[in-house]
Amino acid sequence: MENYFKKSVLKLDGYISPPQKEYLAKLNQNENPFDVPQEIKAELCKEAEKLSWNRYPVNTSPELRNQLAEWHHVRETQILLGSGSNQILQTLLSAVIEPGDKVIYCPPTFSLFDLYTDVYGGELIKVHHAPGGKFPINELLQAVEQHNPKIILLCSPNNPTGFEMELQDLERVCKTAPGLVFWDEAYGEFSDQSAKYLLDKYRQLIISRTFSKAFSLAGLRFGYFLAREDIIAQLVKINIPYNINLFTEMVAIRLLQNLSFMEKHVAYIKNERERLYNQMTAIEGIKVFPSAANFLLFKSTDGTNLFMELKNRGILVRDVSGYDLLDGFLRVSIGSYEENNLFLHKLTDIFEDQI
Amino acid sequence: MENYFKKSVLKLDGYISPPQKEYLAKLNQNENPFDVPQEIKAELCKEAEKLSWNRYPVNTSPELRNQLAEWHHVRETQILLGSGSNQILQTLLSAVIEPGDKVIYCPPTFSLFDLYTDVYGGELIKVHHAPGGKFPINELLQAVEQHNPKIILLCSPNNPTGFEMELQDLERVCKTAPGLVFWDEAYGEFSDQSAKYLLDKYRQLIISRTFSKAFSLAGLRFGYFLAREDIIAQLVKINIPYNINLFTEMVAIRLLQNLSFMEKHVAYIKNERERLYNQMTAIEGIKVFPSAANFLLFKSTDGTNLFMELKNRGILVRDVSGYDLLDGFLRVSIGSYEENNLFLHKLTDIFEDQI
Repeated sequence: MENYFKKSVLKLDGYISPPQKEYLAKLNQNENPFDVPQEIKAELCKEAEKLSWNRYPVNTSPELRNQLAEWHHVRETQILLGSGSNQILQTLLSAVIEPGDKVIYCPPTFSLFDLYTDVYGGELIKVHHAPGGKFPINELLQAVEQHNPKIILLCSPNNPTGFEMELQDLERVCKTAPGLVFWDEAYGEFSDQSAKYLLDKYRQLIISRTFSKAFSLAGLRFGYFLAREDIIAQLVKINIPYNINLFTEMVAIRLLQNLSFMEKHVAYIKNERERLYNQMTAIEGIKVFPSAANFLLFKSTDGTNLFMELKNRGILVRDVSGYDLLDGFLRVSIGSYEENNLFLHKLTDIFEDQI
Repeated sequence: MENYFKKSVLKLDGYISPPQKEYLAKLNQNENPFDVPQEIKAELCKEAEKLSWNRYPVNTSPELRNQLAEWHHVRETQILLGSGSNQILQTLLSAVIEPGDKVIYCPPTFSLFDLYTDVYGGELIKVHHAPGGKFPINELLQAVEQHNPKIILLCSPNNPTGFEMELQDLERVCKTAPGLVFWDEAYGEFSDQSAKYLLDKYRQLIISRTFSKAFSLAGLRFGYFLAREDIIAQLVKINIPYNINLFTEMVAIRLLQNLSFMEKHVAYIKNERERLYNQMTAIEGIKVFPSAANFLLFKSTDGTNLFMELKNRGILVRDVSGYDLLDGFLRVSIGSYEENNLFLHKLTDIFEDQI
């Protein structure tokens, strides 16, 4: 294969998707436990019959961008649409990174940041942020000044730690950065802040958002960037044409016309997150970390192999041991009230069994 | 923007999608004039109500790959799925091209070949093939030996000329090529040949196919590659996870279970292609070229601005003047019997008006 592919690709392990086994509760992919309400699904599926499946979508989906622009109080030329936010992250990094270019990020964080940087031959500069620790803003700023990165990749609330960076720290990064600053708000709806109000102030800021979490559309693949017009104009040139399929486009437009069910689900999940956090804190043998997202990072403090113990009891959580600094850590997505109770009961069982 | 993006991106014009105006016949995007039959659409939309939109698809869609493998008599590990074939073309070129690498192609051909090569900093070596001329196989083989390309990009039947390369010429290219050979069969169902029978013989061959043309699914974005397992294994590592949305996945699986309507539509279109070709040949002032795809390349021989004249009469065709060697050329997609007649009548009108 040496003649065929780049060395940077040959040496990669690639993205590992979690195994899909039988389960009582699936809490391993940060999905929304609630689907789009059935009556809206039925109405949209009825509409889908009338679409011309044989015709290409209108390139760059102006109507959908228009709806998003209205919601976020930006212009539609400030929006880039993706078939999932990962698709446009790939487009972005392909437009920015040449071999040897420096890319700064703060692991443990979203795994595709390193994967795509590696593919394009970028050199990753890591500023580690241990879970539970203070965010290393001074170290990050120093790294930016020292390495002159083409792009800085930040995720807040951060996957898989749940940590939320302060916006004033982001502002300090933007003021120091010579290149682009990418700010992934995939879990933004579960937090109380958004960096979108900083778009007018910092020309190099790109915000990424998705419909896979708060909007319950993981299965339909839709995400988008918000940035200044001149940034989006460059990305549009090389984004995959016709990337948003007709069905997803129609569903996303409809969901933006009435945000109430999304907001209701988000409020419920935030509430459950606090309940779960408090109850997990009370379990001896568990350490759990605060989170601004729809999941919690935790680990056993006594060496119990919690991932296997939970799996054997039908609870799927995400093993995040492979991430920097997270040896022995797990991530549990916030499910429905019933799923969360099941998870809590099984967790309690595990520790009671040991006594 | 100089600090933010690669020079190769800043200087690009980007992909230009054709304008969508009001029309009597839309023959500008090589779409299938026939949609999926209404009863199948209704049945699938009913099924879509039951899918869990809030859940991620199973990564790499094993069931869909399985169906495709059965159809093509290959193993499912020989298949890479894309949200449209363009999405996996981008993945492929990102895995292969480093700045300065040579890429050989035969313009005029599919416009994304140069766009993505440019993004990744590849150096394009052009072996031109004028419409109506003999395929320059010796020149191509010489270029391969001289330039040692990382990848050779071929499209057959070729967009926008309709020309079909002989498989024995492809074999000669594979025998000479030091790197990968990409063979785009987007229009393969409209031709009488496929390179898939060569996959066992040539380890560097990658075949690209799509559901956007013969399968009437341009609106749902689905394409795939066929190649040897060790090639696909590298591409899977860096392909966008969960790239096939649940709706498209379900529809594609269903369409593969019964190929009869696709085959019927293809037979109709091939028939219409021959009728249109013969009738256009008979019009004085028009030169039309033979095609193995679902479109015809043509031009006026007397300087008439046919694109505008047709547009003014409500017929949308594709102006392909911007391609190498195609100044003044147009491309018309094969439509339904009625659409094709409308096109022919308007074309005849244009020349009669001039007398």
